[in-house]
Amino acid sequence: MSGGGRPTAAGEGEVRKTVLPGGLRVITETVPTVRSATLGIWAHVGSRDETPALGGATHYLEHLLFKGTRRRSALDISATLDAVGGEVNAFTAKEFTCYYARVLDSDLPLAIDVVGDMLTGSVLDAAEIEAERGVILEEIAMTEDDPGDCVHDLFARALLGDSPLGRPVLGTVETVGGFTRDRLARFYRKHYDAPHLVVAAAGNLDHDTVVRQVRAAFDRAGALERTAGREPVGPRTGARTLRAGGRVEIADRSTEQAHLVLGMPGYSRNDDRRWALGVLSAALGGGMSSRLFQEIREKRGLAYSTYSYTSGFADCGVFGVYAGCRPGQLSDVLKICRDELDQAARHGLPDEELRRAIGQLSGATVLGLEDTGALMHRLGKSELCWGEQLSVDEMLARIAAVTPDDVREAARDVLGRRPSLAVIGPLTDRQASQLQDAVA
Amino acid sequence: MSGGGRPTAAGEGEVRKTVLPGGLRVITETVPTVRSATLGIWAHVGSRDETPALGGATHYLEHLLFKGTRRRSALDISATLDAVGGEVNAFTAKEFTCYYARVLDSDLPLAIDVVGDMLTGSVLDAAEIEAERGVILEEIAMTEDDPGDCVHDLFARALLGDSPLGRPVLGTVETVGGFTRDRLARFYRKHYDAPHLVVAAAGNLDHDTVVRQVRAAFDRAGALERTAGREPVGPRTGARTLRAGGRVEIADRSTEQAHLVLGMPGYSRNDDRRWALGVLSAALGGGMSSRLFQEIREKRGLAYSTYSYTSGFADCGVFGVYAGCRPGQLSDVLKICRDELDQAARHGLPDEELRRAIGQLSGATVLGLEDTGALMHRLGKSELCWGEQLSVDEMLARIAAVTPDDVREAARDVLGRRPSLAVIGPLTDRQASQLQDAVA
Repeated sequence: MSGGGRPTAAGEGEVRKTVLPGGLRVITETVPTVRSATLGIWAHVGSRDETPALGGATHYLEHLLFKGTRRRSALDISATLDAVGGEVNAFTAKEFTCYYARVLDSDLPLAIDVVGDMLTGSVLDAAEIEAERGVILEEIAMTEDDPGDCVHDLFARALLGDSPLGRPVLGTVETVGGFTRDRLARFYRKHYDAPHLVVAAAGNLDHDTVVRQVRAAFDRAGALERTAGREPVGPRTGARTLRAGGRVEIADRSTEQAHLVLGMPGYSRNDDRRWALGVLSAALGGGMSSRLFQEIREKRGLAYSTYSYTSGFADCGVFGVYAGCRPGQLSDVLKICRDELDQAARHGLPDEELRRAIGQLSGATVLGLEDTGALMHRLGKSELCWGEQLSVDEMLARIAAVTPDDVREAARDVLGRRPSLAVIGPLTDRQASQLQDAVA
Repeated sequence: MSGGGRPTAAGEGEVRKTVLPGGLRVITETVPTVRSATLGIWAHVGSRDETPALGGATHYLEHLLFKGTRRRSALDISATLDAVGGEVNAFTAKEFTCYYARVLDSDLPLAIDVVGDMLTGSVLDAAEIEAERGVILEEIAMTEDDPGDCVHDLFARALLGDSPLGRPVLGTVETVGGFTRDRLARFYRKHYDAPHLVVAAAGNLDHDTVVRQVRAAFDRAGALERTAGREPVGPRTGARTLRAGGRVEIADRSTEQAHLVLGMPGYSRNDDRRWALGVLSAALGGGMSSRLFQEIREKRGLAYSTYSYTSGFADCGVFGVYAGCRPGQLSDVLKICRDELDQAARHGLPDEELRRAIGQLSGATVLGLEDTGALMHRLGKSELCWGEQLSVDEMLARIAAVTPDDVREAARDVLGRRPSLAVIGPLTDRQASQLQDAVA
C-alpha cells in the first residue's frame, strides 16, 4: 500500500471449478505455501427459506447433521476429526448454511470423507433430535444473554418485520419446541441434494484429487445418481422494497449498558453501488480513525464499542450503526449517530477520508486472505451468491475506483432514508418514549 | 498426522534475537511465503503488579498509549494505520501487556515507527485521561453484560481471593474512578523502560532491517540511552501455594442461563507436568469428542457450550471447567462435571483417548501457526515468560511424550484437589445453598 502500489495477495492461488454429474459443484484454490487446508460444504438454504412455523429449522438441521450417519455415530464424527487436531464446525445464515473443517493438508481426504458423509448420509435419529432440542434451547438462551449480539436480531425485526429475513436464524423457543422428525427430514431431503450444494476447498491441495475424493464420498451415498442430469441451482435473484423506517424496537433488560443499532435499507449484494457504500461505511465506523469512533469514543468517552456495517442479501441490504453505552448516555450517543449520518448524507466524504477508507478496505481485504479458512469462505459464498468468482485484483480495483461522487450519491441516497432503531437495556419510561424522536 | 508422521509447521521460519544497548530485546521470525507481518511490543507488566488501589492501572495505561505522543495525536496514530488497512490493538493480561499491529509486509516500517512511538513517547495528556475514563467504565459495564466472560473473573476471586492475581484486569468502577495523571505517569515510567520491553515480529521480514528500524524508533525518543548498560529484565519466577478449595462465589443476575466455572489449582508454566495436564484437559473438555462435551451436550442436551482449560502463571496455575445452562439444569450439569473429574482422578485416561488428545493438541498447535499474528504472540510471550524459544518441534515432542502414567499422576494430583466454584445466574435461594455441596 505504501509506495503507491496495489497490494497483492500471497494467499491467492489458482482457482478451479468442476461440476460433477448430478449438479454438484467443486471449487478449489491451491495455495502451495501452506501446510493446511480448509474444506467447506455450502448448502443453498438459509433461514429465509423457512415458513413461520419452520423458524429455526435450517439451524436445527445444521446441528443434526453432526449427530450421526449410516456409517458413523456422532462420536465417530467428532472423534475422527478431533484425533487429527482438526477444527470442524458449521454456521447457518439467512441465505446459506456452511459446514467446514480446517485440517493439516494430509488430512484433507479424511475431512472430505467425514463432512461429505454428514451432508449425504445423515440418519436424523429421533432420540438424537430430542437431545439436540435441549442444546438449541440453550443456544437461544445464551444468545439472549449477549445483548450486543441479540440487539441485531431486534434490529432485523425493526427493519424487516415479521418476514423470513426479519426473523431470527435460531428460531424461537416455541418453533424449536415444535419440530417433528418428519418435518425436519422433509426439509433435509428438499434442500440437501447435490444441485443445492457447493464443495469449496482452499489450501495445499490438488484440484483433480479433491474432485475424485468428493466424487467418491458422494457416490458412496448415491447422492450424485439421485440427481443425474440436473444442473446446479443458480444464485438467488430479485429485488425487494423494505418497509418504511421510523420503527423503534425496545427490549427491556437489566443490563449495565444500553445496546443500540440504528440503520436503514442499504444495497443488495448485486448492486454496483455497494462498493461506494462499503467505503462510506469504513469512513463512518470502520476503524479507530472513523468518524463515529472519534466522536463517540475518543472525544467524548461515551462508549467502548461502536462501529458501522453493511450487510447485503440477494434482493436487499442493510446499513447500520452499533453502539453500547450506559443508559444515561444513550441520548447523547444517538444524537451523535444521527448528526454524523446527516452530515455524510449532505456532504459525502472529503478526498483525504475517502483515500484513507479505500486504503483501509484494500489492506483489510488482502490481510484477510492469508488464511485458508478465509479463502474457502470466499470461494463458497461467491459461488452460491454470484455464481462466479471475483478475483482479489478485481475486488481491489472496484474499491479503488470508488469516487467522491459515488460516495456522495450513496450517502445521500442511503443515509437520507428514514432510520429504524433497536435498543436493549434498562431504560426509564421517559427514555423509551423519547426514542421515537431519534427516528423522526 | 495421518500416516503416522509428525506434523511440521510450514509457518515456522528462522527465529533470531538481538539485544540492543539499553536492554531492549528484538526477536523476529522470518516467514518468506506470506505477504504480511505482525509486530508486537510486549511490556513486562500486568495486573498482578498492581497494588489494590492501582487495580486496573495497567489496563488504563494500555488505553492511554493510543491517545497521543509528542509526535502524534491520537487521530494521527489511528489514521496512519487505518489508511493502510492495518489492524492495531492491544491487550492487558495478568503478567504482561501487548501492543500489536498486523500489516502488509511493506508497511512494517510504518508499524514499527507508530507503535514504537506509542510505547516510548506517550504524553498522557490530562484531558485525554478524563475522556478515556468514560471509555473504560463502559468497557467494565460491557464485560458485566457478558456473563460467560465475567464468570471467569468471579472464579479467579473464588480460587485466588483478593490478591493481585485474583482481582480483575479491568479494575473496578471505584479504582478506575480514582486514578490521577500523576500515579499513571509514575506507573508508566516505572514499567515501560527498554529492559522491560520485548519487540516481537513475524512475517515476511528481514531481522537486521527490523532491528535497525526498532533502534531508530527507540533512539528518537532517547529510550535506549536512558537505560544504557542495563540488562533485560528476566522472567518472573517463584512458587506460590493457592488458598484451599471449597469456595463458592455466586453473582445473581437476571440472565437466561446460569454460567459456571468449577476448578482447582493446576500447574505453573514452569512445571513440567503441565504437558500431561494439557493432554488431560483436551480429553476432558477440549473438543466435540471430549468427555464433558459428550456427557453434557451430546448425550443429555443440557448445555450449548462446555469446555475445560488450563491457565499457567509464573508461580501457580489453574485448571477449570466451564458450562452454561438454564438454571433448572445446573445441579445435573454440576454433578456430571464432578463425576467426570472424579473418574479421571481415579483412573486417568485409556490409551485410545490419550492418543486422540495428543493428536488433537499436536494438530491444533501446527494449524495455529499459519498466521503471523500467532507466530508473533508465541515469540513475545516465550521471551517474556521463559526467556527462550521452544521450537514447534520441541513442543510437539513434549506433547507426544506424555504417557498414560503422566496423565494418571496429573489427574490424581490436580483433579483430586478440592474445587472452588463460581456461578452467575438467576438462582433460587435453595439452589444457591446447595452449591456448597458441589465443592464438598
